[in-house]
Amino acid sequence: MLPESVKKYLDSHRDEHLAKLMELVRFPTIANSRPDACRACAEWLVAHLEGLGLTARLVESQGPPNVLARAHVDDDAPTLLVYGHYDVQPPEPLAEWHSDPFEPVVRQGHLVGRGASDDKGQLLAHLAAVEAWQRAGGGLPVNVKVMIEGEEEIGSPHMEPFLADHAEALAADAAVISDGEFFADGVPSITYSLRGLAYVEVLLRGPGADIHSGLHGGAVTNPINALAALVAAMHDEKGRVTIEGFYDDVLPLPQEEREAWRTLPADEAHYAASLGLTELGGGERGYSALERRWSRPTLDCNGVVGGYTGEGAKTIIPACASVKVSMRLVPAQDPARIVAAFKRFVKARTPPGITAEVKVNAEARPVLLGQQSPSMDAGRAALAEAFGRPAAMIRCGASVPITELIQRLLGLDAVLLGLGLPDDKVHSPNERFRLTQFYRGAVMSAAFMGNLREARQASG
Amino acid sequence: MLPESVKKYLDSHRDEHLAKLMELVRFPTIANSRPDACRACAEWLVAHLEGLGLTARLVESQGPPNVLARAHVDDDAPTLLVYGHYDVQPPEPLAEWHSDPFEPVVRQGHLVGRGASDDKGQLLAHLAAVEAWQRAGGGLPVNVKVMIEGEEEIGSPHMEPFLADHAEALAADAAVISDGEFFADGVPSITYSLRGLAYVEVLLRGPGADIHSGLHGGAVTNPINALAALVAAMHDEKGRVTIEGFYDDVLPLPQEEREAWRTLPADEAHYAASLGLTELGGGERGYSALERRWSRPTLDCNGVVGGYTGEGAKTIIPACASVKVSMRLVPAQDPARIVAAFKRFVKARTPPGITAEVKVNAEARPVLLGQQSPSMDAGRAALAEAFGRPAAMIRCGASVPITELIQRLLGLDAVLLGLGLPDDKVHSPNERFRLTQFYRGAVMSAAFMGNLREARQASG
Repeated sequence: MLPESVKKYLDSHRDEHLAKLMELVRFPTIANSRPDACRACAEWLVAHLEGLGLTARLVESQGPPNVLARAHVDDDAPTLLVYGHYDVQPPEPLAEWHSDPFEPVVRQGHLVGRGASDDKGQLLAHLAAVEAWQRAGGGLPVNVKVMIEGEEEIGSPHMEPFLADHAEALAADAAVISDGEFFADGVPSITYSLRGLAYVEVLLRGPGADIHSGLHGGAVTNPINALAALVAAMHDEKGRVTIEGFYDDVLPLPQEEREAWRTLPADEAHYAASLGLTELGGGERGYSALERRWSRPTLDCNGVVGGYTGEGAKTIIPACASVKVSMRLVPAQDPARIVAAFKRFVKARTPPGITAEVKVNAEARPVLLGQQSPSMDAGRAALAEAFGRPAAMIRCGASVPITELIQRLLGLDAVLLGLGLPDDKVHSPNERFRLTQFYRGAVMSAAFMGNLREARQASG
Repeated sequence: MLPESVKKYLDSHRDEHLAKLMELVRFPTIANSRPDACRACAEWLVAHLEGLGLTARLVESQGPPNVLARAHVDDDAPTLLVYGHYDVQPPEPLAEWHSDPFEPVVRQGHLVGRGASDDKGQLLAHLAAVEAWQRAGGGLPVNVKVMIEGEEEIGSPHMEPFLADHAEALAADAAVISDGEFFADGVPSITYSLRGLAYVEVLLRGPGADIHSGLHGGAVTNPINALAALVAAMHDEKGRVTIEGFYDDVLPLPQEEREAWRTLPADEAHYAASLGLTELGGGERGYSALERRWSRPTLDCNGVVGGYTGEGAKTIIPACASVKVSMRLVPAQDPARIVAAFKRFVKARTPPGITAEVKVNAEARPVLLGQQSPSMDAGRAALAEAFGRPAAMIRCGASVPITELIQRLLGLDAVLLGLGLPDDKVHSPNERFRLTQFYRGAVMSAAFMGNLREARQASG
C-alpha cells in the first residue's frame, strides 16, 4: 500500500506537475528536423531530474542526446529502470490542429499538444512519483535509474549500441515503460507484446525530367502508375502480404490468447467511429480487427508523392514517384529478413523503363514479454490501487523498440504500464492526454515502486 | 514565292523580334494561379497587335481574357485565322531549372524560359510575319484574324462557348495553329491529328484524420494502398486500359497510315535517350511507340499525394490520398463518355472503409483533319520554302483543344504548322525554343499568307 503522505503530496501538487508537463510539451522535439529543440529539451530534463535529487547527465549519441539519471538508495533495495522518450511525431498536417501543437492548452479535462500523451505526459507521471517519494515518503523505496531517449518516434536507430555500451550502468531488477495506452477508457492494462517495424521508402525513377504526357503518353512507363502497380501487388485479394517469406517466422496466435481477447470489451462499430469511419473494411481475412492489430503482421503506406500535386491540371509524366511503406512485425519476425525480402520483391517487379531504389528508414524487432514475474505482479497491483480496477493483459500493434532491446541486451522483461487512452490521438492532429490519467498515473508509479520494494522484502 | 523585301525585313529584325519574345516570356502566365500576370500579358498582346496595325481588344471570359484582333485588307482576299495561347504550364519543379523560368535567357542558340516554345515563341513568329508584310511587303496579302487564349494548358475550358458566341466574327477561309513541333530536327511537319483529353482527379478518404499505423494497422483500409490498387487495376497485363468501354469508339489505324509512319525517321533508342531513359518500356502491346503515342488512347497519372511526404519516417495511416489521371483520347472517342466510364470504374472498385470522389479537371475531343485542301498545300509549300525540306505528315499525341473546336464550330480544318522541336522540353524544366526555328518560322508564316493569296487568285 502506498503511504498516505505520498498520495497526498501527489494530490496537492497536481497543478505544479501539470505546469511542468506544459513546459515539456513546448519543446518541438522532432528528432529528424529539430536538433536544437531536442537538445534544449534534454537539458531541461537533466535539470529537472537533478531538482528531484537524482544524478543526471546528457549522453551524446549520433542523433539527439540521451538523458541518464540515477538515485542510489540502498544496496539491498531493488533497482528500477524507468524509460521514456522526449521526442515526438511531426505535427503535420498543421491545418487540422485546433491549437498550436507546441503551445499546450487544457481543454475539457485534457492537455492538448504534440507529445502530451506520447510520451512526455506518461514519462512525467513517473518523475512526479519520484518527487513524491523524495519529498513526502522519506526517500525512494527503490534505487532508480532513468533513461530518456530522443529518437523513439523514428525507430530508436541508435539505442541498440547505446544499450550495449551502457549495459552495466543500466543494469536493474525491473524496468517500467509507460508509452502506450489502456485497452479502453476505464480498463487499465498491461501490454505484454508489441509489434516490430520495418519502415522503408521506395523511389521509382522514369524519364530524366517531367515530360509532356500528351506527346509521350503511351511510349514510356509512368513512374506513378508503376508505383501503384508495385504497391498493389504487395497484397493479395485475401488481404495477405505477398512478399515472399513474409509470414515464415510468424508465431501462430495461441488459442487461449485468442479466447482471452474475446472477453475484452471490444466494439468494432465504436472503434470504427472513433477513427472517423462508418466501417473498418480491409485487412487480412480470417482474423478479427483486434487479432489483425495485435498478432498479425501488416503493410501500410505512410506517404506517397509524385508529379504535380498543385491545384488543377498539369499534363506531365513525372520523372519519379516515391512511397513510404511501414511493415508491422509480430513475434518472431526479423526486420532485417523482412527488409531483404522487400528489396527482392521490388527488384523482381521493377518494370522496364524504371529504376528503383529502396531506402530503410527504421527497423525494430517485435517483442513478447513474460506475463508472470514479481514486477508484473507489482504492476498489476499498482494499476489496481490507482485506478480501482484489475488490469487487462493486452498486446499492442505499435512498436516501442526499446522494449525488445531491454529484453535482449539487459535481460529484463519490462512492465508496460501505458497511461494513454485510445482516443488520445497520438501521431494525429490534436493529440491529448487526459489529466486524470496523468495524476492517477503518478499514483500508480509511486505504488509500483513501493510494491517492488515490498516484494523484495517478502522474498528476502 | 515570298517577296525578297519581306524576307529581308525578317532577317534584319531578328533581334527586335527576339526582344519582344523575351518580354512576352517574362509574364508568368499560369492560367490557374496567376490571373494578374495573364491579364497583363493579354494587355501587352493587345498593344503589340495594335502596334502592327490591327484592331485588337480583350474579350472577357470566365478565366483569363482572350485577345481578338483583325486587319481587313480586301473583300476579295482570303481570310486567315491565326490562333495562339499566351498561358503556360506551371514551371515546377523549380529546383530543376538552370535559370529563372520567367527570366528568359539565350543559351546555345535557344531561348530558355517557360512558354518560349509552348506557345509564345510560335505565336510571335506569326505576328512577326504580319509585321513584315505590313512594313515591307506593301500590306498584308490576306485578311487576318488573330485569336489568342489564356487557358490552353488547362484544357481550354471556356473556348467552346466562346467560339459559339463569336462564330461570325471568327469566320475565315483558313486557320493556322503553331503549337506543336517538327517530327524531328530538320524534318518540318504538318500535324493532321491530335489526341483529346479527359483529365480527372480521384480523392480517396479513409479515417477522419491521420492515425497511428502501429495501433491501427491491419484494422482499417489504408487510402494510399487503396489508391494504388485502384490505379493498378486501370491497366491489364497487356498494357490495355481496363475501364469498361474505353476502346469502344476508337477508330482503327488504317494500314496505309501505319505504313507511311514506318518511313519516318523514328529511332526508339534515340527517342528514349532524349527523355533520359535507357529503354522506353511499358505501353500497350502490339503497337510501336509511335503508334501508341499517335493513334492509341492512354491513361497516365500526372500527380499523386497522400500522407507524410517529408524527410524520414512518420508512422501514420493517412486520412486521404489523391491522384490526378489524364487519359489521352483518339478519334472518335468522346471525353464525356470516357469520364462517365471512369467514374463508374472508381465507384465499382471503391473498397469498404473508403469513400471516393472524382473531379473533372479538363476535357478535350480528339481531332482528325483532312490532309488535302488549298490551305494544307499552302502550308506544305511555306514549310518547304522556309526550311528547305518537304513537310512530313504526322499526328501528335498531345491535345490542342481549339483545333477540334475550330473544326466543329467554325467549319475549318486548321493547318497545324508546329515550329517546336522534340527536345524543346515543353511542360518540363528548362523549356526552350531554338532561335532558328523562331526566325525561319516567321518566314514560313509570311510565305503561308502569300501562298493563300496566290491560291485564291489562281482559283478565282
